Amino acid sequence: MNDRFLKACRREPVDCTPVWFMRQAGRYMQEYQAIRAKHSILDVCKTPELAAQVTLQPIDRFPLDAAIIFADILLPLEPMGLSLTFTEGEGPVIKNPVRDRAAVERLKSIDGDELRYVEEAIIQARKALTGKVPLIGFAGAPFTLASYAIEGGSSRNFITTKQFMYREPEAWHKLMDKLARVVTGYLRRQIRAGAQAVQLFDSWVGCLSPGDYAEYVLPHVQLIFEGLKRENVPTIHFGTGTSGLLSLMKKAGGTVIGVDWRVHMDEAWAGVGHDVAVQGNLDPVVLFAPLHEIERRVEDILRRAAGRPGHIFNLGHGILPNTPVENVAATAELVHKLSQR
Amino acid sequence: MNDRFLKACRREPVDCTPVWFMRQAGRYMQEYQAIRAKHSILDVCKTPELAAQVTLQPIDRFPLDAAIIFADILLPLEPMGLSLTFTEGEGPVIKNPVRDRAAVERLKSIDGDELRYVEEAIIQARKALTGKVPLIGFAGAPFTLASYAIEGGSSRNFITTKQFMYREPEAWHKLMDKLARVVTGYLRRQIRAGAQAVQLFDSWVGCLSPGDYAEYVLPHVQLIFEGLKRENVPTIHFGTGTSGLLSLMKKAGGTVIGVDWRVHMDEAWAGVGHDVAVQGNLDPVVLFAPLHEIERRVEDILRRAAGRPGHIFNLGHGILPNTPVENVAATAELVHKLSQR
Repeated sequence: MNDRFLKACRREPVDCTPVWFMRQAGRYMQEYQAIRAKHSILDVCKTPELAAQVTLQPIDRFPLDAAIIFADILLPLEPMGLSLTFTEGEGPVIKNPVRDRAAVERLKSIDGDELRYVEEAIIQARKALTGKVPLIGFAGAPFTLASYAIEGGSSRNFITTKQFMYREPEAWHKLMDKLARVVTGYLRRQIRAGAQAVQLFDSWVGCLSPGDYAEYVLPHVQLIFEGLKRENVPTIHFGTGTSGLLSLMKKAGGTVIGVDWRVHMDEAWAGVGHDVAVQGNLDPVVLFAPLHEIERRVEDILRRAAGRPGHIFNLGHGILPNTPVENVAATAELVHKLSQR
Repeated sequence: MNDRFLKACRREPVDCTPVWFMRQAGRYMQEYQAIRAKHSILDVCKTPELAAQVTLQPIDRFPLDAAIIFADILLPLEPMGLSLTFTEGEGPVIKNPVRDRAAVERLKSIDGDELRYVEEAIIQARKALTGKVPLIGFAGAPFTLASYAIEGGSSRNFITTKQFMYREPEAWHKLMDKLARVVTGYLRRQIRAGAQAVQLFDSWVGCLSPGDYAEYVLPHVQLIFEGLKRENVPTIHFGTGTSGLLSLMKKAGGTVIGVDWRVHMDEAWAGVGHDVAVQGNLDPVVLFAPLHEIERRVEDILRRAAGRPGHIFNLGHGILPNTPVENVAATAELVHKLSQR
């Protein structure tokens, strides 16, 4: 098996820097679009054969060092009692958002059996991968899940979420605790089904001040990483816009800290400390650039990571729709070529 | 005259920390809404009597230490040849966005006379202020202006802007240079009309990696601050999401660096160096919180600023619509009360 990715997660030396891309299975690929022409996102997620098939698509095409199970971070909200739909172009919509303490109380503390289809997809994807590369499981982090649950969809300024947090701190902590427990159980089940590492996506947590993060988010994320320790697999703690939060995120947990492009990799790694691995940090929009511009930026990131064991190359966020497929391939190849030890 | 603000800009000791709020004249005030019920944003901007009147509204109501002229950062784009309209709720729309080199060439290098109405508003606002507090002038920074010019409006991921930057670097630099020269002249005219300090709003520059900022933005911003030096007024360099860019922004210029809430004030100030003043950094959404929560956060910011000369209290971005007016008043009072020397 190609175990570069798992070795780097454990900060062990590797022959070259491992690379995978968030949302590497996605709309930018024709193979993916062909599946989505016939099935909704939720259908693909809930049909293990399809989810496994989509998971493998980028692995069959690009020299990536890890697969990530195809799923959506919002899946757990549905069995918890929220009505989840995806509208074309608009993203997720929750018709009965959480707006008060009573709504928090009504949320079901599911044990994860309702998401059994994700475990099944993991089992099938592992089988189809035949050990070629490791498989990553994932879940949304409590803050990011709470933001969708409260806003009822995507948000720009997270005003409703923060208002809830400031005005109803008890209900907020209750909500975060419920989400943290569901996420812990869900990730544990993914690991037991065969996920060889897991990533916690706190995609929108960068909207918070460090003080608010420490008070309203950190303890709940800590619960998750503590709860996963005995599973003994690498855990990746990811967010965007987190340049001022990275050391707090490290404190919250994770054996790998995700870094977005808004901070230099060397500064970020020095900031969180070299006793933890890092993942990142190319701007996803760079994949639209001419190849020589991509190469300059890949080189810069590798130079800043300085060949230190514990760097996993990735984007700072997911691959965007309309990203040229050939640039995804070229970037993965460049990472390997330019980081040969 | 209350000169706390100007003293703090120069890092001179003050009796208590000066405070003003970005977008302190805005939709959250009934007085403002009454004007806007009868006049569009552009009408208010272009009618010096109205612009001066709106500028004074928050000064008459709250214990603020500076006024900022009412205007819009996009005003210079109109005489440069772009069609600017504001749609209700949607924000600004530019019907003929800049998408290629030819469009950059077509942009007019205006000398600022076309924006004479802003100077007139400054003259009238200064007169109406009768020396009560200083008046700040402002302009959008080249990157932020370019992002509107290229995207044709607001953007979430700035994909079109960055693609232009990566694919047409020469045209990009030409565009940035044109904008930088227009902005320099425009700010110089504002100062000569009576603005006692100026703020450069690079509101969206935080979407860039530090490497891209250094290459595609910094030299153009540097041109502006260099060009304003002989005017001998404080210059504030503002952006959001800039935790990883602050030291580069300082290098680009400004006697005061704006800091948003996504980084602790003490870390930000130490990062840029104590040889520059700082402005910030309360999350605008905190103004929706109960008063005791606002107080805790104001206290924290003041504690982190440590009474060091050179701190101007502000939000990390503009006041949001629907912000409770009484909380704006209370916050300004709290800043003064809690920072008494």
